[in-house]
Amino acid sequence: MPKIVDHDTRREEIAEALWRVVRRDGIRAASVRTIAAEAGWSAGAVRYYFPDQAGLLSFAMDLVSRRVTERVSALQPKGDPASVVLRYLEQVIPLDDERRAEFDVWLAFMAQAQAETGAGELHAHVDKVHDDLRHLCESLLQSLKLQDDLDLRRESERLHALVDGLSLHAAIQPERTTATRIRHILRHHLEALLA
Amino acid sequence: MPKIVDHDTRREEIAEALWRVVRRDGIRAASVRTIAAEAGWSAGAVRYYFPDQAGLLSFAMDLVSRRVTERVSALQPKGDPASVVLRYLEQVIPLDDERRAEFDVWLAFMAQAQAETGAGELHAHVDKVHDDLRHLCESLLQSLKLQDDLDLRRESERLHALVDGLSLHAAIQPERTTATRIRHILRHHLEALLA
Repeated sequence: MPKIVDHDTRREEIAEALWRVVRRDGIRAASVRTIAAEAGWSAGAVRYYFPDQAGLLSFAMDLVSRRVTERVSALQPKGDPASVVLRYLEQVIPLDDERRAEFDVWLAFMAQAQAETGAGELHAHVDKVHDDLRHLCESLLQSLKLQDDLDLRRESERLHALVDGLSLHAAIQPERTTATRIRHILRHHLEALLA
Repeated sequence: MPKIVDHDTRREEIAEALWRVVRRDGIRAASVRTIAAEAGWSAGAVRYYFPDQAGLLSFAMDLVSRRVTERVSALQPKGDPASVVLRYLEQVIPLDDERRAEFDVWLAFMAQAQAETGAGELHAHVDKVHDDLRHLCESLLQSLKLQDDLDLRRESERLHALVDGLSLHAAIQPERTTATRIRHILRHHLEALLA
Protein backbone atom coordinates (compact mmCIF):
# COMPACT_ATOMS: atom_id res chain seq x y z
CA MET A 1 0.00 0.00 0.00
CA PRO A 2 1.49 3.41 -0.88
CA LYS A 3 2.46 5.63 2.00
CA ILE A 4 -0.14 8.34 2.46
CA VAL A 5 1.40 11.64 3.53
CA ASP A 6 -0.99 13.77 5.51
CA HIS A 7 0.31 17.25 4.63
CA ASP A 8 -1.89 19.05 7.14
CA THR A 9 -0.61 16.93 10.01
CA ARG A 10 2.96 17.43 8.82
CA ARG A 11 2.52 21.17 8.63
CA GLU A 12 1.10 21.13 12.12
CA GLU A 13 4.11 19.16 13.39
CA ILE A 14 6.52 21.58 11.74
CA ALA A 15 4.57 24.51 13.16
CA GLU A 16 4.90 23.06 16.66
CA ALA A 17 8.62 22.37 16.25
CA LEU A 18 9.15 25.86 14.83
CA TRP A 19 7.30 27.38 17.75
CA ARG A 20 9.35 25.48 20.33
CA VAL A 21 12.57 26.73 18.68
CA VAL A 22 11.33 30.34 18.52
CA ARG A 23 10.21 30.38 22.16
CA ARG A 24 13.39 28.73 23.40
CA ASP A 25 16.07 30.38 21.20
CA GLY A 26 14.43 33.29 19.36
CA ILE A 27 13.37 33.70 15.74
CA ARG A 28 16.99 34.17 14.57
CA ALA A 29 17.71 30.58 15.65
CA ALA A 30 14.93 29.17 13.49
CA SER A 31 16.37 27.53 10.38
CA VAL A 32 15.45 24.53 8.28
CA ARG A 33 18.23 22.65 10.07
CA THR A 34 17.23 23.52 13.67
CA ILE A 35 13.54 22.89 13.01
CA ALA A 36 14.25 19.54 11.37
CA ALA A 37 16.35 18.55 14.40
CA GLU A 38 13.58 19.68 16.75
CA ALA A 39 10.90 17.74 14.85
CA GLY A 40 13.14 14.68 14.40
CA TRP A 41 12.89 14.90 10.59
CA SER A 42 15.37 15.23 7.76
CA ALA A 43 16.18 18.75 6.53
CA GLY A 44 14.88 17.68 3.10
CA ALA A 45 11.45 16.84 4.51
CA VAL A 46 11.21 20.22 6.22
CA ARG A 47 12.46 22.01 3.11
CA TYR A 48 9.54 20.51 1.17
CA TYR A 49 7.24 22.82 3.17
CA PHE A 50 9.45 25.90 3.23
CA PRO A 51 12.27 25.92 0.71
CA ASP A 52 14.26 28.83 2.21
CA GLN A 53 14.63 31.21 5.16
CA ALA A 54 12.06 33.66 3.73
CA GLY A 55 9.51 30.84 3.33
CA LEU A 56 10.19 29.76 6.90
CA LEU A 57 9.59 33.29 8.21
CA SER A 58 6.33 33.48 6.23
CA PHE A 59 5.27 30.14 7.71
CA ALA A 60 6.04 31.45 11.22
CA MET A 61 4.09 34.62 10.50
CA ASP A 62 1.06 32.63 9.28
CA LEU A 63 1.23 30.70 12.51
CA VAL A 64 1.20 33.93 14.54
CA SER A 65 -1.79 35.28 12.58
CA ARG A 66 -3.67 32.02 13.18
CA ARG A 67 -2.95 32.07 16.92
CA VAL A 68 -4.08 35.69 17.29
CA THR A 69 -7.26 35.04 15.25
CA GLU A 70 -8.08 32.00 17.40
CA ARG A 71 -7.66 33.95 20.64
CA VAL A 72 -9.65 36.93 19.39
CA SER A 73 -12.48 34.66 18.15
CA ALA A 74 -12.64 32.82 21.48
CA LEU A 75 -13.08 36.01 23.56
CA GLN A 76 -16.41 36.51 25.32
CA PRO A 77 -17.34 40.19 25.53
CA LYS A 78 -18.23 40.91 29.15
CA GLY A 79 -17.45 43.65 31.66
CA ASP A 80 -17.53 47.42 31.12
CA PRO A 81 -16.99 48.55 27.49
CA ALA A 82 -13.39 49.78 27.98
CA SER A 83 -12.43 46.48 29.66
CA VAL A 84 -13.85 44.50 26.75
CA VAL A 85 -11.88 46.56 24.21
CA LEU A 86 -8.77 46.21 26.37
CA ARG A 87 -9.11 42.41 26.45
CA TYR A 88 -9.21 42.31 22.64
CA LEU A 89 -6.20 44.59 22.28
CA GLU A 90 -4.22 42.53 24.79
CA GLN A 91 -4.30 39.60 22.36
CA VAL A 92 -1.82 41.36 20.06
CA ILE A 93 0.46 42.94 22.69
CA PRO A 94 3.53 41.04 24.02
CA LEU A 95 2.34 40.73 27.64
CA ASP A 96 3.57 37.16 28.28
CA ASP A 97 6.18 34.74 26.89
CA GLU A 98 3.79 33.38 24.27
CA ARG A 99 2.83 36.78 22.86
CA ARG A 100 6.44 37.98 23.17
CA ALA A 101 7.51 35.15 20.86
CA GLU A 102 4.71 36.12 18.46
CA PHE A 103 5.76 39.76 18.50
CA ASP A 104 9.40 38.83 17.88
CA VAL A 105 8.32 36.89 14.80
CA TRP A 106 6.30 39.88 13.58
CA LEU A 107 9.22 42.24 14.26
CA ALA A 108 11.73 40.06 12.40
CA PHE A 109 9.26 39.63 9.56
CA MET A 110 8.54 43.34 9.28
CA ALA A 111 12.19 44.39 9.60
CA GLN A 112 13.11 41.94 6.83
CA ALA A 113 10.35 43.30 4.57
CA GLN A 114 11.62 46.86 5.24
CA ALA A 115 15.27 46.05 4.71
CA GLU A 116 14.85 44.20 1.42
CA THR A 117 13.95 46.10 -1.69
CA GLY A 118 11.63 44.26 -4.01
CA ALA A 119 10.41 41.83 -1.34
CA GLY A 120 6.88 42.07 -2.78
CA GLU A 121 5.42 38.95 -1.20
CA LEU A 122 6.80 39.78 2.25
CA HIS A 123 5.42 43.31 1.94
CA ALA A 124 1.95 42.08 0.99
CA HIS A 125 1.93 39.85 4.06
CA VAL A 126 3.09 42.66 6.37
CA ASP A 127 0.42 44.94 4.87
CA LYS A 128 -2.27 42.32 5.53
CA VAL A 129 -1.32 41.91 9.21
CA HIS A 130 -1.10 45.70 9.55
CA ASP A 131 -4.54 46.25 7.95
CA ASP A 132 -6.11 43.53 10.11
CA LEU A 133 -4.98 45.28 13.30
CA ARG A 134 -6.17 48.67 12.04
CA HIS A 135 -9.60 47.17 11.27
CA LEU A 136 -9.70 45.58 14.72
CA CYS A 137 -8.96 48.98 16.31
CA GLU A 138 -11.68 50.60 14.22
CA SER A 139 -14.30 47.92 15.05
CA LEU A 140 -13.47 48.10 18.74
CA LEU A 141 -13.83 51.88 18.80
CA GLN A 142 -17.13 51.59 16.91
CA SER A 143 -18.39 49.29 19.68
CA LEU A 144 -17.86 52.11 22.24
CA LYS A 145 -20.08 55.10 22.88
CA LEU A 146 -17.53 57.78 21.93
CA GLN A 147 -17.65 61.52 22.39
CA ASP A 148 -19.66 63.17 19.62
CA ASP A 149 -16.92 65.26 18.03
CA LEU A 150 -14.36 62.44 17.63
CA ASP A 151 -13.09 61.56 14.18
CA LEU A 152 -13.25 57.74 13.97
CA ARG A 153 -10.53 57.46 11.31
CA ARG A 154 -8.11 59.60 13.32
CA GLU A 155 -8.87 57.76 16.56
CA SER A 156 -8.43 54.34 14.90
CA GLU A 157 -5.06 55.40 13.52
CA ARG A 158 -4.03 56.86 16.88
CA LEU A 159 -5.08 53.77 18.84
CA HIS A 160 -3.37 51.48 16.30
CA ALA A 161 -0.13 53.49 16.55
CA LEU A 162 -0.33 53.48 20.36
CA VAL A 163 -0.84 49.70 20.46
CA ASP A 164 2.11 49.05 18.14
CA GLY A 165 4.28 51.58 19.97
CA LEU A 166 3.54 50.01 23.36
CA SER A 167 4.23 46.55 21.92
CA LEU A 168 7.56 47.76 20.59
CA HIS A 169 8.45 49.26 23.97
CA ALA A 170 7.43 46.06 25.78
CA ALA A 171 9.83 44.20 23.49
CA ILE A 172 12.69 46.72 23.91
CA GLN A 173 12.39 47.28 27.69
CA PRO A 174 10.13 44.61 29.23
CA GLU A 175 11.23 45.54 32.76
CA ARG A 176 9.96 49.10 32.26
CA THR A 177 7.03 48.68 29.87
CA THR A 178 5.29 45.97 31.92
CA ALA A 179 1.86 44.44 31.35
CA THR A 180 0.53 46.59 34.22
CA ARG A 181 1.87 49.84 32.68
CA ILE A 182 0.49 48.96 29.24
CA ARG A 183 -2.98 48.19 30.64
CA HIS A 184 -2.90 51.42 32.67
CA ILE A 185 -1.96 53.56 29.65
CA LEU A 186 -4.44 51.90 27.29
CA ARG A 187 -7.32 52.09 29.77
CA HIS A 188 -6.65 55.78 30.34
CA HIS A 189 -6.48 56.33 26.57
CA LEU A 190 -9.81 54.54 25.96
CA GLU A 191 -11.63 56.17 28.88
CA ALA A 192 -10.63 59.64 27.61
CA LEU A 193 -12.51 58.85 24.37
CA LEU A 194 -15.77 57.78 26.02
CA ALA A 195 -18.86 59.98 25.99
CA MET B 1 57.98 61.59 6.23
CA PRO B 2 55.62 59.01 7.76
CA LYS B 3 52.08 59.02 6.49
CA ILE B 4 49.76 60.60 9.05
CA VAL B 5 46.33 58.98 9.11
CA ASP B 6 43.61 61.33 10.24
CA HIS B 7 41.17 58.86 11.82
CA ASP B 8 38.42 61.42 12.32
CA THR B 9 38.45 62.41 8.66
CA ARG B 10 38.47 58.75 7.65
CA ARG B 11 35.53 57.96 9.91
CA GLU B 12 33.69 60.91 8.41
CA GLU B 13 34.38 59.62 4.88
CA ILE B 14 33.17 56.15 5.81
CA ALA B 15 30.08 57.64 7.43
CA GLU B 16 29.28 59.54 4.24
CA ALA B 17 29.83 56.47 2.03
CA LEU B 18 27.72 54.33 4.39
CA TRP B 19 24.93 56.89 4.30
CA ARG B 20 24.91 57.04 0.48
CA VAL B 21 24.62 53.22 0.34
CA VAL B 22 21.81 53.15 2.96
CA ARG B 23 19.79 55.88 1.24
CA ARG B 24 20.22 54.36 -2.21
CA ASP B 25 19.96 50.61 -1.49
CA GLY B 26 18.72 50.18 2.10
CA ILE B 27 20.51 49.15 5.28
CA ARG B 28 20.57 45.47 4.22
CA ALA B 29 22.85 46.42 1.30
CA ALA B 30 25.40 48.03 3.61
CA SER B 31 28.41 45.75 4.01
CA VAL B 32 32.12 46.29 4.42
CA ARG B 33 32.49 45.44 0.74
CA THR B 34 29.79 47.80 -0.62
CA ILE B 35 30.92 50.67 1.61
CA ALA B 36 34.56 50.20 0.63
CA ALA B 37 33.52 50.29 -3.05
CA GLU B 38 31.44 53.42 -2.45
CA ALA B 39 34.29 55.19 -0.63
CA GLY B 40 36.91 54.01 -3.14
CA TRP B 41 38.89 52.23 -0.40
CA SER B 42 40.06 48.68 0.20
CA ALA B 43 37.82 46.43 2.28
CA GLY B 44 40.71 46.07 4.73
CA ALA B 45 40.86 49.81 5.36
CA VAL B 46 37.12 49.93 6.06
CA ARG B 47 37.34 46.84 8.27
CA TYR B 48 39.86 48.69 10.45
CA TYR B 49 36.99 50.92 11.61
CA PHE B 50 34.27 48.29 11.88
CA PRO B 51 35.49 44.71 11.89
CA ASP B 52 32.12 43.03 11.25
CA GLN B 53 28.47 43.54 10.27
CA ALA B 54 27.42 44.26 13.88
CA GLY B 55 30.12 46.91 14.21
CA LEU B 56 28.97 48.44 10.95
CA LEU B 57 25.36 48.60 12.16
CA SER B 58 26.53 50.24 15.41
CA PHE B 59 28.50 52.76 13.40
CA ALA B 60 25.38 53.52 11.31
CA MET B 61 23.30 53.87 14.46
CA ASP B 62 25.82 56.31 15.99
CA LEU B 63 25.56 58.33 12.83
CA VAL B 64 21.75 58.45 13.12
CA SER B 65 21.95 59.56 16.76
CA ARG B 66 24.41 62.30 15.83
CA ARG B 67 22.20 63.55 12.99
CA VAL B 68 19.08 63.66 15.20
CA THR B 69 20.97 65.43 18.01
CA GLU B 70 22.29 68.03 15.55
CA ARG B 71 18.83 68.75 14.16
CA VAL B 72 17.22 68.93 17.60
CA SER B 73 19.95 71.27 18.90
CA ALA B 74 19.57 73.56 15.88
CA LEU B 75 15.80 74.08 16.37
CA GLN B 76 14.60 77.54 17.34
CA PRO B 77 11.50 77.34 19.57
CA LYS B 78 8.88 79.68 18.07
CA GLY B 79 5.14 79.51 17.35
CA ASP B 80 2.39 78.22 19.65
CA PRO B 81 3.51 75.66 22.28
CA ALA B 82 2.00 72.61 20.53
CA SER B 83 3.69 73.58 17.24
CA VAL B 84 7.06 73.87 18.96
CA VAL B 85 6.71 70.40 20.52
CA LEU B 86 5.57 69.03 17.17
CA ARG B 87 8.66 70.44 15.42
CA TYR B 88 10.92 68.65 17.91
CA LEU B 89 9.07 65.34 17.59
CA GLU B 90 9.21 65.56 13.79
CA GLN B 91 13.00 65.27 13.96
CA VAL B 92 12.71 61.57 14.90
CA ILE B 93 9.77 60.56 12.69
CA PRO B 94 10.39 59.26 9.13
CA LEU B 95 8.67 62.12 7.28
CA ASP B 96 11.13 62.44 4.38
CA ASP B 97 13.76 60.31 2.62
CA GLU B 98 16.52 61.34 5.01
CA ARG B 99 14.60 60.46 8.17
CA ARG B 100 13.20 57.32 6.50
CA ALA B 101 16.77 56.09 5.98
CA GLU B 102 17.52 56.91 9.64
CA PHE B 103 14.45 55.04 10.83
CA ASP B 104 15.33 52.01 8.69
CA VAL B 105 18.75 51.90 10.36
CA TRP B 106 17.11 52.09 13.80
CA LEU B 107 14.61 49.38 12.87
CA ALA B 108 17.30 47.01 11.56
CA PHE B 109 19.43 47.74 14.61
CA MET B 110 16.59 47.15 17.06
CA ALA B 111 15.32 44.01 15.29
CA GLN B 112 18.85 42.57 15.37
CA ALA B 113 19.19 43.33 19.09
CA GLN B 114 15.82 41.61 19.68
CA ALA B 115 16.57 38.59 17.56
CA GLU B 116 19.98 37.84 19.03
CA THR B 117 20.26 36.50 22.52
CA GLY B 118 23.25 37.77 24.44
CA ALA B 119 23.79 40.78 22.16
CA GLY B 120 24.59 42.89 25.23
CA GLU B 121 26.35 45.75 23.49
CA LEU B 122 23.62 46.10 20.87
CA HIS B 123 20.99 46.07 23.61
CA ALA B 124 22.76 48.79 25.60
CA HIS B 125 22.85 50.96 22.50
CA VAL B 126 19.15 50.37 21.72
CA ASP B 127 18.30 51.18 25.36
CA LYS B 128 20.24 54.44 25.15
CA VAL B 129 18.41 55.61 22.00
CA HIS B 130 15.10 54.53 23.55
CA ASP B 131 15.78 56.40 26.82
CA ASP B 132 16.87 59.53 24.95
CA LEU B 133 13.57 59.69 23.09
CA ARG B 134 11.56 59.08 26.28
CA HIS B 135 13.43 61.93 27.99
CA LEU B 136 12.79 64.18 25.00
CA CYS B 137 9.05 63.40 25.23
CA GLU B 138 9.06 64.14 28.96
CA SER B 139 10.95 67.45 28.59
CA LEU B 140 8.67 68.55 25.77
CA LEU B 141 5.54 67.80 27.82
CA GLN B 142 7.05 69.66 30.79
CA SER B 143 7.43 72.71 28.56
CA LEU B 144 3.64 72.75 27.97
CA LYS B 145 0.94 74.04 30.30
CA LEU B 146 -0.85 70.72 30.81
CA GLN B 147 -4.18 69.98 32.43
CA ASP B 148 -3.84 69.78 36.22
CA ASP B 149 -4.82 66.13 36.72
CA LEU B 150 -2.43 64.66 34.13
CA ASP B 151 0.20 62.15 35.24
CA LEU B 152 3.46 63.26 33.57
CA ARG B 153 5.04 59.80 33.62
CA ARG B 154 2.00 58.19 32.00
CA GLU B 155 1.72 60.96 29.40
CA SER B 156 5.42 60.74 28.53
CA GLU B 157 5.12 56.98 28.03
CA ARG B 158 1.95 57.41 25.98
CA LEU B 159 3.45 60.12 23.75
CA HIS B 160 6.66 58.11 23.29
CA ALA B 161 4.68 55.00 22.28
CA LEU B 162 2.52 57.06 19.91
CA VAL B 163 5.60 58.61 18.25
CA ASP B 164 7.28 55.22 17.76
CA GLY B 165 4.01 53.62 16.59
CA LEU B 166 3.41 56.36 14.01
CA SER B 167 7.03 56.07 12.84
CA LEU B 168 6.59 52.33 12.42
CA HIS B 169 3.39 52.87 10.45
CA ALA B 170 5.04 55.51 8.26
CA ALA B 171 7.71 52.93 7.45
CA ILE B 172 5.23 50.09 6.81
CA GLN B 173 2.64 52.04 4.79
CA PRO B 174 4.09 55.42 3.75
CA GLU B 175 1.24 56.02 1.27
CA ARG B 176 -1.32 55.81 4.09
CA THR B 177 0.59 57.14 7.10
CA THR B 178 1.74 60.34 5.40
CA ALA B 179 3.53 63.31 6.98
CA THR B 180 0.21 65.21 6.91
CA ARG B 181 -1.66 62.43 8.78
CA ILE B 182 1.11 62.10 11.39
CA ARG B 183 1.15 65.87 12.06
CA HIS B 184 -2.66 65.88 12.29
CA ILE B 185 -2.74 63.00 14.79
CA LEU B 186 0.12 64.34 16.94
CA ARG B 187 -1.29 67.88 17.03
CA HIS B 188 -4.68 66.55 18.12
CA HIS B 189 -2.98 64.38 20.77
CA LEU B 190 -0.98 67.31 22.16
CA GLU B 191 -3.86 69.79 22.10
CA ALA B 192 -6.04 67.37 24.11
CA LEU B 193 -3.43 67.50 26.89
CA LEU B 194 -3.29 71.31 27.14
CA ALA B 195 -4.87 73.20 30.03
